[in-house]
Order: sequence, then C-alpha cells, then structure tokens
Amino acid sequence: MFIKNAWYVAGWSSEFGDELRRVTMLNEHLVMYRTSSGDVVALEDRCPHRLLPLSKGKRMGDDIQCGYHGMTFNCSGACVRIPGQDNVPSTAYVNTFTVVERNQIVFVWMGDPCHADESKLFDMPELSDANWHAHQGDALHLQANYLNVAENLVDPAHVSFVHPTTLGNAASENVPVHVDTKGDVLVAWRWIRDAEAVGFFKKFGGFTSNVDRWHYYYLHLPSIAVIDFGSADTTAKIAEKERDKGVRIFALHFLTPVNEHYTIDRWMHIRNAAIGDDTASEQMDAMFRIAFNEDKEILEAIEEQERLPQKRKPIRLAIDKGPAVYRRRIRDLLEQETTEDLGEPLHPTFVHH
Amino acid sequence: MFIKNAWYVAGWSSEFGDELRRVTMLNEHLVMYRTSSGDVVALEDRCPHRLLPLSKGKRMGDDIQCGYHGMTFNCSGACVRIPGQDNVPSTAYVNTFTVVERNQIVFVWMGDPCHADESKLFDMPELSDANWHAHQGDALHLQANYLNVAENLVDPAHVSFVHPTTLGNAASENVPVHVDTKGDVLVAWRWIRDAEAVGFFKKFGGFTSNVDRWHYYYLHLPSIAVIDFGSADTTAKIAEKERDKGVRIFALHFLTPVNEHYTIDRWMHIRNAAIGDDTASEQMDAMFRIAFNEDKEILEAIEEQERLPQKRKPIRLAIDKGPAVYRRRIRDLLEQETTEDLGEPLHPTFVHH
Amino acid sequence: MFIKNAWYVAGWSSEFGDELRRVTMLNEHLVMYRTSSGDVVALEDRCPHRLLPLSKGKRMGDDIQCGYHGMTFNCSGACVRIPGQDNVPSTAYVNTFTVVERNQIVFVWMGDPCHADESKLFDMPELSDANWHAHQGDALHLQANYLNVAENLVDPAHVSFVHPTTLGNAASENVPVHVDTKGDVLVAWRWIRDAEAVGFFKKFGGFTSNVDRWHYYYLHLPSIAVIDFGSADTTAKIAEKERDKGVRIFALHFLTPVNEHYTIDRWMHIRNAAIGDDTASEQMDAMFRIAFNEDKEILEAIEEQERLPQKRKPIRLAIDKGPAVYRRRIRDLLEQETTEDLGEPLHPTFVHH
Repeated sequence: MFIKNAWYVAGWSSEFGDELRRVTMLNEHLVMYRTSSGDVVALEDRCPHRLLPLSKGKRMGDDIQCGYHGMTFNCSGACVRIPGQDNVPSTAYVNTFTVVERNQIVFVWMGDPCHADESKLFDMPELSDANWHAHQGDALHLQANYLNVAENLVDPAHVSFVHPTTLGNAASENVPVHVDTKGDVLVAWRWIRDAEAVGFFKKFGGFTSNVDRWHYYYLHLPSIAVIDFGSADTTAKIAEKERDKGVRIFALHFLTPVNEHYTIDRWMHIRNAAIGDDTASEQMDAMFRIAFNEDKEILEAIEEQERLPQKRKPIRLAIDKGPAVYRRRIRDLLEQETTEDLGEPLHPTFVHH
Repeated sequence: MFIKNAWYVAGWSSEFGDELRRVTMLNEHLVMYRTSSGDVVALEDRCPHRLLPLSKGKRMGDDIQCGYHGMTFNCSGACVRIPGQDNVPSTAYVNTFTVVERNQIVFVWMGDPCHADESKLFDMPELSDANWHAHQGDALHLQANYLNVAENLVDPAHVSFVHPTTLGNAASENVPVHVDTKGDVLVAWRWIRDAEAVGFFKKFGGFTSNVDRWHYYYLHLPSIAVIDFGSADTTAKIAEKERDKGVRIFALHFLTPVNEHYTIDRWMHIRNAAIGDDTASEQMDAMFRIAFNEDKEILEAIEEQERLPQKRKPIRLAIDKGPAVYRRRIRDLLEQETTEDLGEPLHPTFVHH
Repeated sequence: MFIKNAWYVAGWSSEFGDELRRVTMLNEHLVMYRTSSGDVVALEDRCPHRLLPLSKGKRMGDDIQCGYHGMTFNCSGACVRIPGQDNVPSTAYVNTFTVVERNQIVFVWMGDPCHADESKLFDMPELSDANWHAHQGDALHLQANYLNVAENLVDPAHVSFVHPTTLGNAASENVPVHVDTKGDVLVAWRWIRDAEAVGFFKKFGGFTSNVDRWHYYYLHLPSIAVIDFGSADTTAKIAEKERDKGVRIFALHFLTPVNEHYTIDRWMHIRNAAIGDDTASEQMDAMFRIAFNEDKEILEAIEEQERLPQKRKPIRLAIDKGPAVYRRRIRDLLEQETTEDLGEPLHPTFVHH
C-alpha cells in the first residue's frame, strides 16, 4: 500500500548527527547516522542474528556493533565482524537505503537502491534564493493514513470550513476549484477576488481593505505538497502570473508515512517578505501550528471513522476533483510497482568485503 | 447481538442543549442536540462525504454544517447545502433516529423509525406522582456486556454476597427466589421476614429492631430494570401488596449498551419518604454509589474472564431462574428481529427537499 | 507452547499468607493462599458458575466463598456450599494444582497433579549449606517470551556486549563457548584466563590485578537457570574443578512464563564470601539490578521485533550452541507432552465430598 520507489523525508539535516537514530517509514525500521565524512546513511534496523535493532547498539567508527552479541556492520550493510568466529557467512548483512541531503533536508529512497533516481528529488528555486526566506517548521504527527493527509493538501475547498479564522473565510465557500496535472505534479487552485483578507494575511500582510487572494495546491506524487498562497490589494489588479507582486507564501509539507495509520507531516515555509526577520518566522510558525492542528483534528477523526464497519459507500462531490485525481494516480503508481516488481531488491545491496 | 427495535436512554433531559453531542449506542454513533423548538433530535454522526462525525461540525440554526467541507443537513437528515455545487444527489443524507422525551429522560428508538412505538416507552406512575420523590442519579460506566449487567438486575441472590454492608446481609443467603413473567416484564422476588435490617435501611429508615424486607426485581426487556425494595417493622405484619406501608424505594436502572463490551447504567431512585428532602437524596446517592461500584467490580472481572478461552461450560444453579428466563427472552427477540428484518430501514427516512 | 508437566515458581515463601492472591502462569489464572495448617494451595481462579475469579471472593476458614453468589470451595477444589440449593452437582468443582515449598520457594506443578513429580523439583546443596550465603532478590518483569529469556541464560557470549561495565568486558569477546548436556540440564561455559577483572568482581571481590574468570550457565529445563561465575587471582592457577577457591557466586533465575509475551524472572544469589553480611547482599542486588535491566532492554526490543513481519530467516552463529540445544530440547518436550497427552487432567482431581 506504499509506493517504495520514491524519496521520503527522514528529517531536517540538523536532526542527524553522530548518534544512532531509529527512523520508521513505510512500516520499515531504519537506523540512521552521519558518518565521519559527513554523509547520512540508513541501514535496516535489524540485526540478522537475533533481530535486535542495531540502533540499540553502538558506533565503532563508522560501523555499528550490535548490542547483543557484537556483530558489526559497515555503512554499506556488510558484516565486518562476528565475535567468536572467523568466517562471515553470505547471509550476514543488512539492507541499506540510499540517502541524499538537499536544501538541509534528508531524503531516503525507500525502494531498491539500484533504482534511486536523484532527478526525482524534490526541489524548488525559492529554497536557495536570497530573495526568499525559507524556514523549517515542525514535525506534525498524525494518527492518520498518509493518503487522507495528502488528499487534504490538494483540496482548497476545506479551507473555509476547517480554518475559518486563519487560512480561510466564508468568501471562498462557493468559489469553484480548478485542477490540472503536469507530470508527477497535480495542482488544484482558485482565486477569490475582491474579498476581505483572511486572518493570516490581516496579521501578516497587514491588509485592511479588500484583497485578491489565491491558493495553489501543488502535490508532488506521492507525498510532498507545496501550497502557494498569498494576497494582493484588489486595486493592484494583479494577473495570475504576477503573484510575486503580492505577499506570497509557500507552505511545504513533506509527508512521511510511518505506517498505515500514522503519518508525519514535516512542514516549512518560504516567503517573499520579511526576509531575515526571525520574529516573523516565529509568528508564522505559531499561526501555522493553529491551522495544522485543525487539520489534524479532522483527519484523525476521519481515520477513526474509516476503521468502523461501513454500511454505505461515501459519496463524491464536485470539490473532490483534486483528491480524486490524486487517488487515481496513486493507484496507478502502486499497480506499476507491483507489475514491474521494483519494490524489493533481488540481491543484497553491497559488495561483500 | 443488540435488539434494535427498542427504546434506549441517551441521557437525562438536562444533558441535552444547543451543543452537538456525540452519543454511542448499540455500536452506532449519533449526534444529538435540542432544536430551537425544544425537541431533541438524533442523526447518524457521519457525513456521507468523507465520514467526518457531524458532531465535529457546527450548528447553523437547526441544521448541522459538516466541519470538513460544509455539507449541511437539516434535522430530518436531508442535505440542504453542498458548497461548490448546486445539485444535491439523492445519496446525500444521513439517517435519523426517533427521539422521545418523557419524565425528564431522553429515549431513542434505535430501529427503523417507521416502527418506533411510543406505547412501548418505559413509564411508571410514581415518576410523576407528588406523593413520591424521584431523583436522577449518575451514569455508571461498566466495561461489561449489557446482558451481564441486566442479568445482575434480575438476580436477588447476589445481594447478600456482593452488597453485604449496604443492600443485603447474611439473613437472605438461603431464601429462595420466585420468578414470573408478564408480557415484556420479568420479575424475580423474595421476602426476608423478621430479620435484622440491612445497612441501607438502618441508615435511611432508622430501623433498630427486626424488619420484614422485600426485593422485587422487575426487568423490562431488553434493558430497563426497576428494583422495588423496602422494609417494614416486623410487628406491622404487612402483606405482600401493602408495600407502600413500609419505607419503599424504587431503584431504576436504564442500561444503554455502548458496544459489545461497554454499558452505561443510568440510575435514579423514587421513594415514598423524605419527600422534597435533597439531603436525603444525596445520602441515598452516596449509598447507591458504593453498592453499584460493588456490582461494577464483579461485572468487569466477569467480562475479562469471559474473554479468555473456556475449557468448561459454566454450570447453572437454582438461583439462576431470573437470568435464565431473561437470556431466553432476549434470544427470542433477537431471532424475531432477524427473521422479520426490522433492523435496518429499507429506504432513507426523510422526504427530499 | 508451554511445557505443563514441570515445576514453576509462583513466588518466594514470604509472599504467601492468609490473603487470596491471583497468580498467572502459563496463561492460566490461579488463586493461591496459605491454609491454617501452613500449606500453600493453588486452585483454578474461576468460579464454575459465572466465572468470577475466586480471588475476588473471601476466605471462610480454609475454604473460599465466591464473591458473586457465595458458592464455596474447599482447598481440594470441591464445592461445599451452594446458597439457595441443597444438592451439589458433580460439575461444581474447580481444578487444583500441586504446590510444594522448598528452600523458601513456592513451586507449582502446572500439569496433571497425578503426574506431579517431586524428584524433578529444583534444588542445590548450597541453598541450605551454612558455608554459603543465599539471598532472595527481586521479580523482574519482562515483556518477552520465556524462551528468549531462557536462551539468554545459556548464552555466555552476550555478556561482553550487554553487560560491559558489570558482568563482562572486552577480554571475553572472542573466547569460545563450550556446551554440554546432562539429563535435563544444559551447560554452556567458558574461562577467561589472565585478564582484567570485570566490574562486578572489582567492586565485590576487590581484585586489582589480573584474574582467571569463569562463567558456567546451567539451564534446568524448561526454565530455571543457575549461573556459576567467579574470579580467582591468576597467580593462584586454580583448576576448573577448584572454583570454590575463588570468589564464587551463583545467580539463580526462576523463569515463570505468565503468557506468550510476558515472563517473570525471580532471581536470587548464593555466594561463598561475606557470609551473613546484609550490606554485601544489598550491594550485590544493586549490581544485579543494573545488569538484569540491561538484559530486559535487549529482550523486550527483540520481542517487539519478532512480532513484525519477517522477510528473512534469522542467521545462526557459532556462539548459538547453547540456545540451539535449548530450543531443540524444548521442542522435544513439547512434542512429548502432545503425544502422551499429559497436559490436561482427564477427570476432576478431587474426591467429591
């Protein structure tokens, strides 16, 4: 039920150091650490002998020694020592995962390392452009399936009802949503012209008269969302492509499915205003925390409800265009992985020492 | 495993006001509230779109607006608004349940509203008779199947052992129990003549010399019990039908099965003494709380034990007459519901707007 | 999955008195108490009527009265009273278990009492020899299957890695392990000659120069372990059989499987030094607590890991000799019980009164 051949975020770069850290993604346990060369590595967190998580062991240089009987693995997953015997059998290894760090974010390719494709790594120019201020926020933990969380991030229609005091207001309740697809990115968007500013932009942009407001929800399959939203004074009459002229914010959501019922949403934001202003970043964090906890409450309630026996099929509405396209694309990707059998490496992923 | 075509208590009238309240009965989630006309209504607590409980939404007049995308339902269960679209499909509705309030108690008919039968509502004249003092007590939450809780309420034999300091004493240990059935009411009873008063009546009736004591356990199928118990000075030599001459108390138990392993017992009491005396009500509450928690401890321990694998069939005793008749009647009612297929409404229960 | 025809420890003698105590072993609930004659008895903790644990009832002399309806059982499991009726049906009994107390330890035979075999009771002369100091420690509760806990007690190789500061050190990492079997006892052992003393013996034996150190792990099937370990000055050149010449300690572990995922390890120790010195006992307890909690952390992590879906079979190493023999012997014993059908008594185990 997970797409394995994709990059998932294990954390911000600052979260990884010398110590062994257990990270769970797609129902698999990984042990991750930063080697002496500065690279972050990820191994299967399970000793092949008695199954103890290697994260319970200790580092010996760049290797890990199991905490039970001392079997030692290098960061390619090869066993380099078995106390009490000289030969190392070919079955003595742990799987490894490809890790790439970019823009201070640690990505892991959860499928076969042979197919790890850096061209598919998420990036956007604003992440490394001095005219924009990027700020890493929190990890929101949701007891919810990642598909429901992702669906919520390609669904502009919920904003008026879930976030009435922060990101939305009544003016947008009936405004229709457009949906389009470009390769592995879906986009759902709408403009609300000549309406009162929402709470977020009253507080942050300082708008007191009517604004033109936009919401563009980009969903990079399978689980990274960029929400481009902003406001500009209605009298400025900006065109759709001139969004940089207004106060423009990108909210990024990196969803990591922990297991079927648990998702971590690591979020950050990028803005074209208040560059270098840490107080503004903190205020924005505070506003986002309120809004994202509103999502969390809804999504966790739905998760519980979905686990009950269902007597009727859910109904579909006009506003479901974005989520419906998303679900279809995910189904296609899952089917493709099954038929191409890329999900599991056929051979150990290291050369034996 | 539940009898659907019956009235169950959702709470005392004082518990229902403007706010949306989630109530779970027979493993179904309801959202309940009091409309502007003063009526309490109950709807299926599940939006047909993305399944969010409607109780997470908000009231718009007498309607409920879903907290996720704003679908709005009136108190007949009909959808009156879908933001972003004009047409309302026929599948856009929620089920409703028939609610009746009587004697300051809110009853819900959990079966098909077409079969809701007010003639089957529980009532007794003492609930609205100025010569009697009625007092609503607490909701006792038990991690136990309702059949075990109900069985305990048609079982006078447990009183000597479970409640030795409050409702029973050793004098009644070997007194035989009579059982009879009148329509949908079972009754199990016994008299203990010329014996020491039990703790409850020493404290409440002030008896110091020997009394005649009675216990009548009336069980209104499927899950409402009235325990008529009292004491009179033995020298008064009262007949069985003259119980009003003694200190007489009715303890009422309205059992609501929440799910297979969880039951709420809302209890109240009615008495022919200390009319209008609130201190006496409080003292009685305190004594009942002790006694009912003794039941709770036993019933929850049995629930745990019943979940274990069983190597031997439980044995039946002479004192099981009441419980045995009760179980048989419940089995008959369940079978009747299955064969008559009254359990589920065949069609939506509202006329589309 | 449990061997029933064996003695398991229910507790130290000091833990059993007048009060009814629920004890769970091999997934069965027992009620245990000490009778007026001083004997500890164990009955099935389940009234055959409504299944209430008898431990929720009360003692009537040496009998137990059920807390629900007063059925009363003597300490042979026979029913001696049913309130409300005169006849006692043949099905009114509870099973009993054979209990033996020896060396201040309470043992229960969990199989058919007809096969209870006192010759199989665990004993060792040092438990009652004035030249040795025996001290009862704690009950360590582990969320782990008993086989994994027992395996750890016939596995000298883990000591260097799990207990590097207390019971082991790096000197023993590569020393090979010997394994042998004598009847129902396995032994795995090794000597580390002419090496630095481990933390335990530095602190307790006061060794500052090099020592000869031994570890003998005796596992009495199915679940009692004696670890004979000690140190002697290397210059003394003691032979393997002369261990009494050094500082010698026996750590005893009585494993009681509570259920498939939960084991109690009651441990005690016996030593040939500091006889009668309670402070030394306390210091030793403190050191053992540190070491045994190190085991607990490992074993509970393995338990969690074993519950996950496994893609690969665990690999076996040279150091697994002891555990491998243990697993094979347990398998044989389980198979023997199944084919001989000794596990369940065919008839009630008492003579009806």
